[in-house]
Amino acid sequence: MRPFLDLTDLSDDRLQALLALAGELESAPVRRSLAGKIVGLLFMNPSLRTFASMDAGVKQLGGDTVVITPGQSSWKIETEDGAVMDGEAAEHVREAIPVLAQYADALAVRCFAGGRDLQADLADTVIRTMAALSPVPFINLESAAAHPCQALADWKTLDDLAVPRRGGRFVLSWAYHPKALPYAVPASALRMAAMRGMDITVLRPEGFSLPESVMTGAVEIARHSGARIRETSDRREGMEGAHVLYAKSWAAPSLYAKPEEEAALRSPLRDWCVAESWFETAAPNASFMHCLPVRRNVKVADEVLDGPRSAVVRQAGNRLHVQKALLLDMLTEERP
Amino acid sequence: MRPFLDLTDLSDDRLQALLALAGELESAPVRRSLAGKIVGLLFMNPSLRTFASMDAGVKQLGGDTVVITPGQSSWKIETEDGAVMDGEAAEHVREAIPVLAQYADALAVRCFAGGRDLQADLADTVIRTMAALSPVPFINLESAAAHPCQALADWKTLDDLAVPRRGGRFVLSWAYHPKALPYAVPASALRMAAMRGMDITVLRPEGFSLPESVMTGAVEIARHSGARIRETSDRREGMEGAHVLYAKSWAAPSLYAKPEEEAALRSPLRDWCVAESWFETAAPNASFMHCLPVRRNVKVADEVLDGPRSAVVRQAGNRLHVQKALLLDMLTEERP
Amino acid sequence: MRPFLDLTDLSDDRLQALLALAGELESAPVRRSLAGKIVGLLFMNPSLRTFASMDAGVKQLGGDTVVITPGQSSWKIETEDGAVMDGEAAEHVREAIPVLAQYADALAVRCFAGGRDLQADLADTVIRTMAALSPVPFINLESAAAHPCQALADWKTLDDLAVPRRGGRFVLSWAYHPKALPYAVPASALRMAAMRGMDITVLRPEGFSLPESVMTGAVEIARHSGARIRETSDRREGMEGAHVLYAKSWAAPSLYAKPEEEAALRSPLRDWCVAESWFETAAPNASFMHCLPVRRNVKVADEVLDGPRSAVVRQAGNRLHVQKALLLDMLTEERP
Repeated sequence: MRPFLDLTDLSDDRLQALLALAGELESAPVRRSLAGKIVGLLFMNPSLRTFASMDAGVKQLGGDTVVITPGQSSWKIETEDGAVMDGEAAEHVREAIPVLAQYADALAVRCFAGGRDLQADLADTVIRTMAALSPVPFINLESAAAHPCQALADWKTLDDLAVPRRGGRFVLSWAYHPKALPYAVPASALRMAAMRGMDITVLRPEGFSLPESVMTGAVEIARHSGARIRETSDRREGMEGAHVLYAKSWAAPSLYAKPEEEAALRSPLRDWCVAESWFETAAPNASFMHCLPVRRNVKVADEVLDGPRSAVVRQAGNRLHVQKALLLDMLTEERP
Repeated sequence: MRPFLDLTDLSDDRLQALLALAGELESAPVRRSLAGKIVGLLFMNPSLRTFASMDAGVKQLGGDTVVITPGQSSWKIETEDGAVMDGEAAEHVREAIPVLAQYADALAVRCFAGGRDLQADLADTVIRTMAALSPVPFINLESAAAHPCQALADWKTLDDLAVPRRGGRFVLSWAYHPKALPYAVPASALRMAAMRGMDITVLRPEGFSLPESVMTGAVEIARHSGARIRETSDRREGMEGAHVLYAKSWAAPSLYAKPEEEAALRSPLRDWCVAESWFETAAPNASFMHCLPVRRNVKVADEVLDGPRSAVVRQAGNRLHVQKALLLDMLTEERP
Repeated sequence: MRPFLDLTDLSDDRLQALLALAGELESAPVRRSLAGKIVGLLFMNPSLRTFASMDAGVKQLGGDTVVITPGQSSWKIETEDGAVMDGEAAEHVREAIPVLAQYADALAVRCFAGGRDLQADLADTVIRTMAALSPVPFINLESAAAHPCQALADWKTLDDLAVPRRGGRFVLSWAYHPKALPYAVPASALRMAAMRGMDITVLRPEGFSLPESVMTGAVEIARHSGARIRETSDRREGMEGAHVLYAKSWAAPSLYAKPEEEAALRSPLRDWCVAESWFETAAPNASFMHCLPVRRNVKVADEVLDGPRSAVVRQAGNRLHVQKALLLDMLTEERP
């Protein structure tokens, strides 16, 4: 069983089957399919939705979880090969993963970007090393470069909102945030929209293009799917006819691992807080999407989040359904 | 289904039915009534008894829990409406509650007093806002102004100890504590004793009366139940004929949100550490109650806690039984 | 039901029965034997393997856990009798244990050495006090002086590796670690090898003998089992013909509770990092054991941990099997 590390690991057929199964589970959430099975959840970083939806999902399917939170109830875990471990970390993933795999029928792991080496983070070396160490099925719950469970939920949300694949206009917009954030979510959202064959605009201020390899990867996907991708820093133009605005913040790639310089470039951009006025040129009833958590009135105004176009709660709800479908797909013979 | 936010949410009939059901569950703790159901436990503050009894209770009834601890395995959560979230909190209850409600069949939440605005804390605005955001049944696991699960367990404990409703003499006494503590427990204990129709004395040093709205609320309850409420700072007189001494510490209301001044008023009162000598004028075999945790030899002496009059372990045991009854009442058709 | 506090609590018959049951559970891990039962897990200190293997084990047997982590999701807990609790700890074990015992069918507790009083730590007074307070079966998940679940897993691992009881050559070696570590694991490994009747060498630098009471206790066991115990600081000689090298770090007993002096004695010993060269005089295919977590390239070199002689992952796997056997033994009528 191959690990699930990125949405692109799924063929279009398997993806459609997962979405069909997710729809069934949305209507009938409780099964006994995972009875006697344990899913190990390893959270190297904090979580609300991802943890709660995985934990609830496994249990609604009759299984059980074991949750490890290094740096909290467990010690810090080293991820670098060959490390001389005389610092804070007391254990290495080379032990932690094979050990936990003996107690669980699958592992699901969150491990954010290290933030020091852009190329290593974009190559997702850490989560790929961890997956390779696991003899049991392995699910990425957000790594340096990808958040595929979110992307799968986002796909279902676009289906729920009846946004068409071909011709659906998807705007991925940068938004202000007090911290430099990683690329996992925007890169996964971009790849998802590209796999879906959509008409995509990346809307961002100058200096905040996504990393080149993220863009070229999406363009390569688009070449097969028929998607179109363009970039702009002009909000009115970028939002023209948009069916969906998907907001997210990310660090300026040219200043990765240079937090002070990056903050200086970012700090004048506080007006990139999504407001109703952004939707003036959008399609009627355009939707607003965000992976959550979201800082209200910093990244997105209350009026958007509390208004009728917000799909953020539905997106989060879909996390549960698609992850349960994934678990059934990876751990059982059940198919839609 | 109305949320359970305060003991006064229960009619006397429903309260008696819950206590009867709790008694049944004490004798036969294991059922499958909640099979397939998830209860979300959101702890904005630490817990031992409340968490463990809810977690065990749900599981003994065949259900499962999902536990979120903001500031630990999850990030901090903002509770204020309209907040500009550029501080520590990464998520707002306006997202967190509706999202978690999609993963759970009920939510149970602990959220202590903010400690800055006495009137807002006494009005319990935060937990009431959270409850209003929840589309699923909602249980208060201790808020700014109330700890109704504790109050329900305390009622059962008084029944177990055969302390009569009418004529039962209940002393709620202030005790020393190194920190300024909130009013949730003493206010709930006072309302509980008032609903029970007891003969109540609030024993406290000068300056440590309970907030006026807490006292007037209890007097209003007493008007219907036949309870009597008086206040004194005289220990011998206050304990005269007492069947129960219920000890708790709380902040001086006049110095709320002024920690240094409050500490100066409180610090000379270290002799308000409950000792056997307090019971000289009490009824024979008078009981000692406390919600726990308790700081030994600071708030209560070892001789009381380790002696025969201590009911504190029984009180904690009753948490399990009454909360299970509440879950059956709120989530199933099962009645005693 | 006596608590399980040390491997020496088990007769040889009961130990063999547990190992047989563990073998059965390794082949067929899922049962419903603990259905409706709750095991309370109290972790006063961090854990990965112990927590995950207990949590998974209980659930694979059809039971459920309630997990309390003082200092994290719960407050700190005082363990000293008669303490005046005006410091950090908000609750005492004299309440915490009896209270939790009301919510659980068994308690399993981790509570490391206090590190201030060598004799109290070696007498394991804290865990023994806690066990005495528990009206339900009680399991030691590593205390000041013992880690019996580890020792039981180690025994099974030696059986799995076909290392003979009589004549099996077991080297317990000190290894460098940046911190002064407690005696629970080395003392338990030593007693385990002594109970097993092995030919034991304690290999350690000068000044790092195990505490005298640990050595005399092991010698007393050896007198009955036929084991032999010697000590040396000479690596070549100590490893001569060894079937197993079991590495662990521990503090210099003469400098207990004197961290700076102890660190000064320990710091020149960084070459006590186990490497392949250590095995030159060992038996062919000698095994390497360690309880984990291990600091790679500080305590043990990558070449050993990643090489064919490492049994550390198997050791950790056996934690699951032996603890499940112990739970069945203590909580059910099931026997091999």
